[in-house]
This record gives sequence, structure tokens and C-alpha cells, in this order.
Amino acid sequence: MKPGGPYGRVYVLRLGHRPGRDKRVTTHVALVARAFGANGLVLAGVCDESVQNSVRSVVERWGGPFHFECGVSARRYLESWRSAGGEVVHLTMYGIHVDDIVGIIASSPKPKLVVVGAEKVDRFYFDVSDFNVSIGTQPHSEVAALAVFLDRLFRGSWRRIDYEGGRLGIVESPRGKRVEEKG
Amino acid sequence: MKPGGPYGRVYVLRLGHRPGRDKRVTTHVALVARAFGANGLVLAGVCDESVQNSVRSVVERWGGPFHFECGVSARRYLESWRSAGGEVVHLTMYGIHVDDIVGIIASSPKPKLVVVGAEKVDRFYFDVSDFNVSIGTQPHSEVAALAVFLDRLFRGSWRRIDYEGGRLGIVESPRGKRVEEKG
Repeated sequence: MKPGGPYGRVYVLRLGHRPGRDKRVTTHVALVARAFGANGLVLAGVCDESVQNSVRSVVERWGGPFHFECGVSARRYLESWRSAGGEVVHLTMYGIHVDDIVGIIASSPKPKLVVVGAEKVDRFYFDVSDFNVSIGTQPHSEVAALAVFLDRLFRGSWRRIDYEGGRLGIVESPRGKRVEEKG
Repeated sequence: MKPGGPYGRVYVLRLGHRPGRDKRVTTHVALVARAFGANGLVLAGVCDESVQNSVRSVVERWGGPFHFECGVSARRYLESWRSAGGEVVHLTMYGIHVDDIVGIIASSPKPKLVVVGAEKVDRFYFDVSDFNVSIGTQPHSEVAALAVFLDRLFRGSWRRIDYEGGRLGIVESPRGKRVEEKG
């Protein structure tokens, strides 16, 4: 499977990143986006070099393409995504449970922008999104929420996603660690 | 559903936590454990008060019980878990794909200790675990890996987990935020 699956593009827009404090969690968000089949991560607000370097290093070793962009205005990005014909899915513990709505989201062929926030998310994002989707109503983690959402959207087929150009690959094994060096 | 489902106890053992640097990611691990139906988190090595306080605050507001323990020796904890009749599931990108093995894991009624590491995990854990389970062979996040594993183990029924004594609850809604204050 190609990243993005049948939707052309699935991007993740990360809100509320605070450089320093959030660098590890935002890096996890980016790597989950890539590993579960999204095509890219857009980091709203200032650029954080440590996130950018971590993502670049994973793409160099494990393959790509994976789009990374930072320093954008979230609102403007979201509005231009919508006017280009894409739709917006906002992950929030206040929304509709993923299992009740993902079928509807998956059935539309539109490119999807998946919005994940940090602690407080402005009302604007609830109103402007096509779907507010909850990965349960207990507080947990935007990293986990993104993984479960993409798992449901792609019906588990992230297992078969192909990335080109990586130098490393893993061979599954009961007592692992088997790493393959490619060409 | 009660946390732990049919297994009596499902605990998560977090290895390799570095206080300060990992406090946010480890807090996410703990909250995912709770939200996806595990009964507790055991933090190997030194206690990190900021993780402990975050977990306590969530349990106070959103309900429990949720066991939290720190300052333990991971090896000794794991050995006593096994000698008490429990089994050990180690999440690692080198293992067997979750969808190929979770049925076997779920079919045993034994209490389960789910081991999640940080960057480098010692060979010991691969050898001593009953199962080395991969949530894909791409690098991503122990937070995401734990969520997907517990989702598969409990077959999505984390949605219906009941926590007692919480003061807050959320009502799902298409344009949320609807929070209920309980008695």
C-alpha cells in the first residue's frame, strides 16, 4: 500500500507545539503519522529543529517520501486545505466515537487533514472541521489517538505500507532482533 | 467492562524512563494504559514525581482504580510476575506482528504484563518474555504501540470501560465540548 491509501493525501496538522517541552511528543506524532500511513506532518507555529531533524533522520534510514513542514499558520493552512477540496478531521475526546463515524470518513475519497492538538484547542477547530472524532472519552494522548484513528481509517493495512529508499528493514521474529541492510 | 477485562490484571511495565527528558512521553504511556483498559503502570528505576502527580490528578478527576508504582527493579518485577503465574508480552518492532499473535495471547486467561521500552532494550527482555509483539516494523512510538496492542487485546471494548469515583465525564457530540460533572 502507498502512504495515503485511496485518499491521495492524508496529512496530519499538529497544533499547540511548544518547542523544548513538546519535542519528544511531537516527534512521536510525526513518526506515528508516517508509520500508520499518512503522507506528511504539518507543524503549526514556529519550527522546531529537533523535531525536524528526528523526522529527517528516520526518513533517511527507513524510507519515504514523508512530507514535513513547519512555521505555518494553522488556520490559514486549514482553510486552504478545504478550499482545495480536502476535508478536515479533528481528533478530540469530545467528538463522536471513532467506530461510529470512521466508515463515513473512509467512504469519501477526499484528501484528509487530521488535526491533533495539545492541551487546549480553540473553539475554531471544532467548528471548522468536517468531523470531530473521539478516540474514547478518557484523557490519554494525541500520539495514541492518531495511531488508532489511522489504524481504523486504513483498516489495519499500515502493515503493508511501502516506503522507498530506506536503508533498513526489519524481519519479524519471535525472539528478534533481525535487521536487514538494504542495497 | 472492568479494566483488565477477562485477565484479572493487565499491568504495563515501562522501561528506560529518564526523569525530566521522558516525563511527558511516560505520562502518555500511563494515561494510555488507563484509557485502553490496563489496571496499572509500573515504572522501572527511579520515581519521577511529575509522572506520578499527573497520573494521580487524572485518576482523581476521571476515576479509578489505577495502580501506579515506581522505583522497582524491572528484572525482579518481571520474574516475580512470572513466578506468580502471569505472562509477559514485550512490545518491540522486532517481534511478531500483533495481528498474527494477539489471538493466542488473548485466549490465555493469565494476567498479562505488557513491557514497553524506550530507545534501547536489553536482550534479556526479548529472551524472558512469553511474546515479543510488533506493532509494525517501522519506528514510531511506545505510546502508539501500547494503544494499538491494548485495542487489539480488548477488541475495541475500551470504549465501555467503567471507572468509579471520577468527577468528570464527557458526552460525545459532533461539535462538542460537553462535559458532565458527576455528583
